[in-house]
Amino acid sequence: MVPHLVTALTGPLLDLEKKILAATPAIERWFRLEWQEHTPPFYCSVDLRNAGFKLAPVDTNLFPGGFNHLAPEMLPLAVQAAMAAIDKYCPDAKNVILIPESNYGDVSYLQNVARLIQIFRQTGLNIRLGCWNCKEVTKIDLPDGTSLSVEPLQRSGNGRRGVLQKFDPCTIILNNDLATGLPPILDNIHEQNLLPPLHAGWTVRRKNNHFAAYDEVAKKFGKLIDVDPWMLNPLFAKCGEINLLASEGEDALKTAIDGVLSKIRKKYKEYGIKEKPFVIVKGNASTDGRGILTVRDTKELSELLRRADLKVGKDDTALTDVVVQEGVYTFERISEAVTEPVVYMIDRYVIGGYYRVHAERGTDENLNIPGSHLVPLAFAQQHAIPDVHARPGTTAPNRFYMYGVVARLALLAASLEMERTDPNPEVY
Amino acid sequence: MVPHLVTALTGPLLDLEKKILAATPAIERWFRLEWQEHTPPFYCSVDLRNAGFKLAPVDTNLFPGGFNHLAPEMLPLAVQAAMAAIDKYCPDAKNVILIPESNYGDVSYLQNVARLIQIFRQTGLNIRLGCWNCKEVTKIDLPDGTSLSVEPLQRSGNGRRGVLQKFDPCTIILNNDLATGLPPILDNIHEQNLLPPLHAGWTVRRKNNHFAAYDEVAKKFGKLIDVDPWMLNPLFAKCGEINLLASEGEDALKTAIDGVLSKIRKKYKEYGIKEKPFVIVKGNASTDGRGILTVRDTKELSELLRRADLKVGKDDTALTDVVVQEGVYTFERISEAVTEPVVYMIDRYVIGGYYRVHAERGTDENLNIPGSHLVPLAFAQQHAIPDVHARPGTTAPNRFYMYGVVARLALLAASLEMERTDPNPEVY
Repeated sequence: MVPHLVTALTGPLLDLEKKILAATPAIERWFRLEWQEHTPPFYCSVDLRNAGFKLAPVDTNLFPGGFNHLAPEMLPLAVQAAMAAIDKYCPDAKNVILIPESNYGDVSYLQNVARLIQIFRQTGLNIRLGCWNCKEVTKIDLPDGTSLSVEPLQRSGNGRRGVLQKFDPCTIILNNDLATGLPPILDNIHEQNLLPPLHAGWTVRRKNNHFAAYDEVAKKFGKLIDVDPWMLNPLFAKCGEINLLASEGEDALKTAIDGVLSKIRKKYKEYGIKEKPFVIVKGNASTDGRGILTVRDTKELSELLRRADLKVGKDDTALTDVVVQEGVYTFERISEAVTEPVVYMIDRYVIGGYYRVHAERGTDENLNIPGSHLVPLAFAQQHAIPDVHARPGTTAPNRFYMYGVVARLALLAASLEMERTDPNPEVY
Repeated sequence: MVPHLVTALTGPLLDLEKKILAATPAIERWFRLEWQEHTPPFYCSVDLRNAGFKLAPVDTNLFPGGFNHLAPEMLPLAVQAAMAAIDKYCPDAKNVILIPESNYGDVSYLQNVARLIQIFRQTGLNIRLGCWNCKEVTKIDLPDGTSLSVEPLQRSGNGRRGVLQKFDPCTIILNNDLATGLPPILDNIHEQNLLPPLHAGWTVRRKNNHFAAYDEVAKKFGKLIDVDPWMLNPLFAKCGEINLLASEGEDALKTAIDGVLSKIRKKYKEYGIKEKPFVIVKGNASTDGRGILTVRDTKELSELLRRADLKVGKDDTALTDVVVQEGVYTFERISEAVTEPVVYMIDRYVIGGYYRVHAERGTDENLNIPGSHLVPLAFAQQHAIPDVHARPGTTAPNRFYMYGVVARLALLAASLEMERTDPNPEVY
């Protein structure tokens, strides 16, 4: 299915697009060289926002769900990329454990797990599901008549490996973002790969570290293709040590927001952009859409906070550490509804994507909330590859190439972030 | 397009198929470990013959044409595999030269070249076409309104590199099989990759070396999955120092053929196969379909030789060195016409395939001659990957997995062959 997109994007984005397309060989070479220095995350999905005058990643997910929403034709590409990844981590692999989220009531998520199983199985690996918070094997039925079986994770005899009953893998893949804490059974795993590493989990990970790494990547890339890195990078500020639920730190937050809004205003002025600047306030350590505020003016902050859900995470903790991120308008629409692209990668390869669409949200609002639906990017638009002979702005593959580039910039930033936040860097 | 295949394959092949599917994780692991030891050819196509009781590669092409006959949906898979290959040879690449065959009148071949250009361009490389037997830039128009431009290859200032005007590549890809000789301009290329290497060309390459390497691979693989390697491997004998055009060596050939026929008879008896054994006699150093004889009985040899075209190659040289290969029936049919699968690989990845179909040929005859047509394998059958939950023999993907395995066995044999026949092994 090929979604119909409003491509009435003129001005700066076309410039950016032209520059990216013209620099394709330099860009691909640059990525190849960066991947000689840095190891990409095992897998990753990136939410992008395309404002016409800028295109930026707004969320980099290291435990991507939603593989079931990729077009089925993408599967071979995912399998081939997973083969390349496994080859790197553990060529003698036969067995892999996948640890999913434990919300077994979410059918869509379970279908994502089923798709991941399919990808690994098709690389020729034996794959079984593990959990750390279960005592016995749990069978979960899926609507299509198949079922998933989740088995208790154990430590092996010498205690250095995570295993299932009669199943000793060379790699444990996490699809559980560890938002509820680091399970002790995953501590000090040796002789095995744990992908992504524990410090990618939301118990440890902080968005501001990612944004800082992305700043650096965007700067370097901006230099390569000669564009202002701001065209690819939302401004941000961190605002910690607050507790909005207890009304502590509202002034600090106001100052942070005003700081970012004023920088955006300056940039908008520089490029003659008439839109109204806004920021997104979100938890520094959470993935879900709760507690995400759109703020256009700090005068309205108190009122917004009063109405907002200031608890975050699966266990309803108070929001005490937030980031203020430049809001990026999304000017893409499918059948009038506001939409943003999400790009999926395995290892360093773009393997698919979809549009997240929400009919009742504005161009300056978070779309990753109930009520949104997903439109897979069909194969014709899926090449992640430009045809430099096509005119920029006229064909979908060109536009998707740019998405593939910006998503990989976020992927590279995640790689730097993981290196820098590694509590045991000597392990590398 | 999904070709309709007669899948009335019972008995031993189903056994073989079951064994291959059951051993998938072991097989994929085995390939991963082999590729740690051996470098796969840059690209490769393999002709397979499926006799029901056995499945075997009969031709391993290191300069594959026919990329244009792969289904267009395969393109991203090819691009991703080419990206992985380039990454290995030369991550800092921006430029690549492709050297095609010089028969500019063959539109289908030119479309193959255009497809290869598309693949490389989509990996983000600048690609230009080179020739060693031309003095100036040649522009060739294609039916779709586009054109190809072939430029004279030169040696660079220091003489160590092959370049085009203002274009210095890190890699030169040969799609010219060098059947007409080794061009001096490609001698002693340093500081650049020449892929495949010169000794892969038919000036140097001999089929018996490939068959010998394949013997070894099939033996090892047969042990892995516990099948008689003969199920995957045609018997062969080399018969050199003959000149059939001058009627020299007919007796030696007769002896070689009788030797192979007698071995086949023994195997057919062992497995209760009722078919009539036959052999294929082909040039040890040629790719084309000319000079290929099907022999069922050496009594008919003289008569066959009288009627045969005993010249080979693009320059009509006499057939002086032949291999006698066990004939493998092909029991696959599309709309009643005899057909055989051809599998394409880039680096170690299966990236597509097609069926070669010939309505006027028998199940024991070479199909790679004028009058054949090609049916691309469509995406649904293209996963190169088994679903172990599907019942063997009932679904196309399963069958294609086996093809993907056997084609990769030939790929691995080509890799061993190239190592062993390398005139400058220290270069590796």
